[in-house]
Amino acid sequence: MKKLINSIDTIVDEACEGLAAAHPDLVRFNREPRYVARAGGPVTAKVALVSGGGAGHEPLHGGFVGAGMLDAACPGEVFTSPVPDQMEAAGRATSANAGVLFIVKNYTGDVMNFELAAELLQADGIEVRSVLVEDDVAVKDSTWTAGRRGVGATVFVEKIAGAAAERKGSLADVERIAKKVADNGRSMGMALTSCTVPAKGSPTFELGEGDMEIGVGIHGEPGRERMALKSAAEIVELIAKPTIEDLPLKRGDTVIAMTNGMGGTPLIELYIAHNTLAKMLSGLGITVAYALVGNYITSLDMQGFSVSLLRADKELLDLWKAPVHAPALRWGV
Amino acid sequence: MKKLINSIDTIVDEACEGLAAAHPDLVRFNREPRYVARAGGPVTAKVALVSGGGAGHEPLHGGFVGAGMLDAACPGEVFTSPVPDQMEAAGRATSANAGVLFIVKNYTGDVMNFELAAELLQADGIEVRSVLVEDDVAVKDSTWTAGRRGVGATVFVEKIAGAAAERKGSLADVERIAKKVADNGRSMGMALTSCTVPAKGSPTFELGEGDMEIGVGIHGEPGRERMALKSAAEIVELIAKPTIEDLPLKRGDTVIAMTNGMGGTPLIELYIAHNTLAKMLSGLGITVAYALVGNYITSLDMQGFSVSLLRADKELLDLWKAPVHAPALRWGV
Repeated sequence: MKKLINSIDTIVDEACEGLAAAHPDLVRFNREPRYVARAGGPVTAKVALVSGGGAGHEPLHGGFVGAGMLDAACPGEVFTSPVPDQMEAAGRATSANAGVLFIVKNYTGDVMNFELAAELLQADGIEVRSVLVEDDVAVKDSTWTAGRRGVGATVFVEKIAGAAAERKGSLADVERIAKKVADNGRSMGMALTSCTVPAKGSPTFELGEGDMEIGVGIHGEPGRERMALKSAAEIVELIAKPTIEDLPLKRGDTVIAMTNGMGGTPLIELYIAHNTLAKMLSGLGITVAYALVGNYITSLDMQGFSVSLLRADKELLDLWKAPVHAPALRWGV
Repeated sequence: MKKLINSIDTIVDEACEGLAAAHPDLVRFNREPRYVARAGGPVTAKVALVSGGGAGHEPLHGGFVGAGMLDAACPGEVFTSPVPDQMEAAGRATSANAGVLFIVKNYTGDVMNFELAAELLQADGIEVRSVLVEDDVAVKDSTWTAGRRGVGATVFVEKIAGAAAERKGSLADVERIAKKVADNGRSMGMALTSCTVPAKGSPTFELGEGDMEIGVGIHGEPGRERMALKSAAEIVELIAKPTIEDLPLKRGDTVIAMTNGMGGTPLIELYIAHNTLAKMLSGLGITVAYALVGNYITSLDMQGFSVSLLRADKELLDLWKAPVHAPALRWGV
């Protein structure tokens, strides 16, 4: 295993510290319990958006803390759910008496621990709602998931709910919008190589030299099928088609599209993949209003990519366009 | 070799097409001769900034085409210099009768081909100046370079000269500023793994399972030393110290710092590296005014990173802060 680390035990703390060091104007790092929050403290009368999950998916979630997006992110150890103390402390630190919205990816540990944190906050009179992201169409039930896994649509939920909160929408309104995004977002991924979890030191799964895994999860959970490597265009077809059909998207729809790298994939290859995706959607009469191409929700050093599509009406598009200023997403400011 | 491609011959064209498909508001792709240019055409009375070089370093240079940065980028094949026709056509297409500035990384082929393109344009009455970036302190003379290699400081030159051109500075003024940035920027990199050039199909160099290469070039050119893998903090020391000493930076200086991934490095590791860099600079009494952490100038799928530092006075900091809207760098708009 070759990794740029100092010690397996301090990976997440040091990465959070580095994030805050790079963006002191945007985020601050609270070591114990561990969370990353907006540098400026709670924003008056604004719903506080808190997310989190296992580390190893950077820039998710810490890179999305900032104006117009998250108020706090709670990273667990690599691929390990954060504990309730973290979300409780983050909720308390960012609450501005307008309620707290938890954005939770559908993994059993995350779901349980966010629920416990919500109970702790509510016992103290802080109103908490939660939205579950379960957008991965590849498989139903997985290593750590009952139902569908939460993956790329999380980026859409955090951006758009973040904009809704920033304009001082009520907790009910921000929750409604977050759920609308979660309901209209779908994703599927693939891997050319496994990731290597530092604490384990060896690849999570084995893939033959000429093979790939279609429908892989962001922790290396098994996908739909293992098969011989195909062309980029064929691979895009294999993961985009089920994503489109699941929604389903139809002629005349407008989407926000993300071609997301898993961490070890060169950008030149992501642009090749996106090129096919754009042509495919255009051929189906589907308009791409905005596109993201790059590393947004990763799986450590895995080579591979995922496609996420959000069916977006005017309300969602307007919120998408609204200013955002986070370490990993910035426009309009 | 596992890559998301359709055919080795079409990699660069398809990636450029994908870039333009993702950002039709920002860039357009000209296939023959190949360049990527701003979508809107020449900007009245503005110096046109044109860069280029071998592909495989994405987002450099195409991802930096846009308002406040480059007017055009000319990618060659992977790790291969573009031909003069490309820079000539790009210069012609973006010239707004205020002159053209070429930003050239110091590789023999690039230098020669940009020179030829400049002669062709000048013969047609278009004024052309060139700025050479040669910031890699690792080695003097390299596989394709006489003198120092041009690497990460190129991002600083393109951003800051881009801002100078955007405010309608004269060609002489934009050239002066670009040279000032090139003179005050230094970099050094390292590799945990080799990159694999698609046309070759096997790693450019071999590195033992427990080894790393200090001072590697962005095409996998040999560095200063091959040694056993060390901790992230020790590695940062090994590449940042020569960078700092070469300028040299002194107590009280202000820098823009970039912790840049080589393409296959997870962001969590880059933040760990940046954390050490930030502490090291702070300990030396050097202020980091702005930081970039991520993939800005890559080497295909190589795992590793580089550090780039720009000593910046008020003029350079103000230009850095100015709005930019390119696929891979955006703020203020």
